[in-house]
Amino acid sequence: MSFDIRYTNAAITQPTPMVDEKRVRANIARMAVKAARVGVRLRPHFKTHQSAAIGEWFRDCGVEAITVSSVTMASYFAEHNWKDITIAVPINVREADAIAELAKKIDLGLLFDSIEAVTAIESALSAAGARGDSRASGPPHDGVVRAWIKIDAGYGRVGVRWDRSGEILAVARAISGCRRLRFEGILTHSGHSYRQEDIAGIRQVHEESLARMRAVREMLGTRVRQDASAMKRSEPLFERGLISIGDTPTCSTMESFPGVDEIRPGNFVFFDVMQWRLGVCGPADLGMALACPVIGVYPQRGAIALYGGSAHLSSERVMVRAREGGEERIVFGYLANFAGGETLGVPDARLPVVNLTQEHGIVLAPPDACAHVTAGDLVLVYPAHSCLTAAMHREYVTTIGERVGRM
Amino acid sequence: MSFDIRYTNAAITQPTPMVDEKRVRANIARMAVKAARVGVRLRPHFKTHQSAAIGEWFRDCGVEAITVSSVTMASYFAEHNWKDITIAVPINVREADAIAELAKKIDLGLLFDSIEAVTAIESALSAAGARGDSRASGPPHDGVVRAWIKIDAGYGRVGVRWDRSGEILAVARAISGCRRLRFEGILTHSGHSYRQEDIAGIRQVHEESLARMRAVREMLGTRVRQDASAMKRSEPLFERGLISIGDTPTCSTMESFPGVDEIRPGNFVFFDVMQWRLGVCGPADLGMALACPVIGVYPQRGAIALYGGSAHLSSERVMVRAREGGEERIVFGYLANFAGGETLGVPDARLPVVNLTQEHGIVLAPPDACAHVTAGDLVLVYPAHSCLTAAMHREYVTTIGERVGRM
Repeated sequence: MSFDIRYTNAAITQPTPMVDEKRVRANIARMAVKAARVGVRLRPHFKTHQSAAIGEWFRDCGVEAITVSSVTMASYFAEHNWKDITIAVPINVREADAIAELAKKIDLGLLFDSIEAVTAIESALSAAGARGDSRASGPPHDGVVRAWIKIDAGYGRVGVRWDRSGEILAVARAISGCRRLRFEGILTHSGHSYRQEDIAGIRQVHEESLARMRAVREMLGTRVRQDASAMKRSEPLFERGLISIGDTPTCSTMESFPGVDEIRPGNFVFFDVMQWRLGVCGPADLGMALACPVIGVYPQRGAIALYGGSAHLSSERVMVRAREGGEERIVFGYLANFAGGETLGVPDARLPVVNLTQEHGIVLAPPDACAHVTAGDLVLVYPAHSCLTAAMHREYVTTIGERVGRM
Repeated sequence: MSFDIRYTNAAITQPTPMVDEKRVRANIARMAVKAARVGVRLRPHFKTHQSAAIGEWFRDCGVEAITVSSVTMASYFAEHNWKDITIAVPINVREADAIAELAKKIDLGLLFDSIEAVTAIESALSAAGARGDSRASGPPHDGVVRAWIKIDAGYGRVGVRWDRSGEILAVARAISGCRRLRFEGILTHSGHSYRQEDIAGIRQVHEESLARMRAVREMLGTRVRQDASAMKRSEPLFERGLISIGDTPTCSTMESFPGVDEIRPGNFVFFDVMQWRLGVCGPADLGMALACPVIGVYPQRGAIALYGGSAHLSSERVMVRAREGGEERIVFGYLANFAGGETLGVPDARLPVVNLTQEHGIVLAPPDACAHVTAGDLVLVYPAHSCLTAAMHREYVTTIGERVGRM
């Protein structure tokens, strides 16, 4: 990362997430170009940056539809002129009223993995429609919501398992019976791609997930035509749905997405040590780092202490095998070299943050590295997991000193 | 925890940290009484709650002096009428100007573990004094700061190691040579008490730390008299200093603090699963829990999904040995039974949260427990580490629905 020295010299006194706009814009452009090339829609997940300003950098690359992970986040981006938003978590029925309000304003997508949630949201949307008469405000937002069935294609977190055809079909039928919902397709997040060791592992997750998703769509298509035939209807209950997938490891590294209509990666905007370790990105793609003041240097202990702990970096971690000996170690981030600013002049600055408490971070640093640092210096830490590091802060600062707000 | 049903029924729609005021006040009172009984000053650490309103509950128990972990936190509590504050991290010299401003307003304590930091702060305090002429505003805040030497008594995080007498003495002499600093004593945080398995382990950490701290004070006293004698001074450079210690495990469970002048526990205000697992508190002492909406129930998978992930609970964890088999498992929190509200009627509600992503929490729940829960229910999670869970939110809600602000 390259910082404007006039800025970093004095203005940064506390742990501060720094964004390298050039790197971030390059990460966005690369993903937008790939999506165009392979012929899928890019609906990026905005949970990573949660910033209206950074959202505009996506808009500059032609992005019009986005993904978020909460109703609050959907409302924030709706206020910032995003008109097509999917909330990609199984819906929280306690927020049904807020969802119904949103559905009047934007083209909203929701996820369902049970009949109960379908029923609850349909009731809330109907009640809100009756109260506010959304249709008075005219098309296109008539309060009808795009409904996705959330499929568990192997990750095992939420969603209906890919092989439970009866349950999937029951949710699809429930959606099709709702006036306020329109069946859109099936959606999955193969988050187990993060747990792989390398690209080969990511490829295996990708191919297995896609095969399962295509089988689910095939099953739904066949069954819905059988339904129509048994009921002597000329039209099936719903049309062939879309397939939406999304995780940064597969979307960044794979070149083939057979059967996929939409991808929803998020973390790629910043990347982080987790992705770097997986081979998904290189160190020059890391778009966000935490600037931390040095508060102690301990050559005898082989450590540097930072003002910057789990309250600033989060407690997210990766397991890394040490070069020698092969023992595994918990790493919360790595120190980065950076040009300009008050450079940490350590030749190979990939020193790991190995211990975090609320306000302190401890960096493992051999005595010759300690000799380059003094209390009061500013160093940069690439975080283990950028989404969570970002979540600890209310704004970013760019490498030229501009402040960028977050929700 | 006992909730007012009128409040929880409708008002809580998102992950919300709930505070049980009765339990929290009892936790505070118990510690205040113990400090009075053993004859030490209680200077509680406010980094756990970071709330002016909860601070008043301490004031009700006679607390007048507090500990914080950042300059920002010190400024916040200074604005809320706290006049005696120790910032218990090695000082961040990049915030020297803000520290100097604070020193004009309140009785401020700082920690040092190097001569460089002593010199940097002395310069900043002198410069601020020259600029603002703090003495014009009169006593008692003449810009002179209480200086503690931070000792590493075995934890190995920051501070000068207890057995490095030469370095400790050098820092003490540097402090004594400063016009704007007054040597106050030696301070340690034996955070390795958190890593123990039981009370016997905590006792061993406590006794070892105290013996080392007393030895350091003894050494300092002897050497400073030798100095005075060598320099043919009638008075030594500084007076016998105080000993300040502080961590919740030792302060909560030990009854004897020989040689100690001040204790600085923080987490005891809420406690958490980490303390409960250590035997430091019981489940009825847990003063804070995260209320989370249920977003999915999966009997076949033996799981309940919550809206409440690492962005709400933090990624802090404990390792817990499962009852059967003895295998270790990562636990981010436990579901709690709670009276009133929409009760989770599971007989033994100590179901573990075993997986967290940014917005989701996955609770391990056998099918019979799943049968008691539906999507839209509200459940309570006792967090692994309450300090960090609190740090993810901007306010608490009490069990009777009052909103309590945080910095």
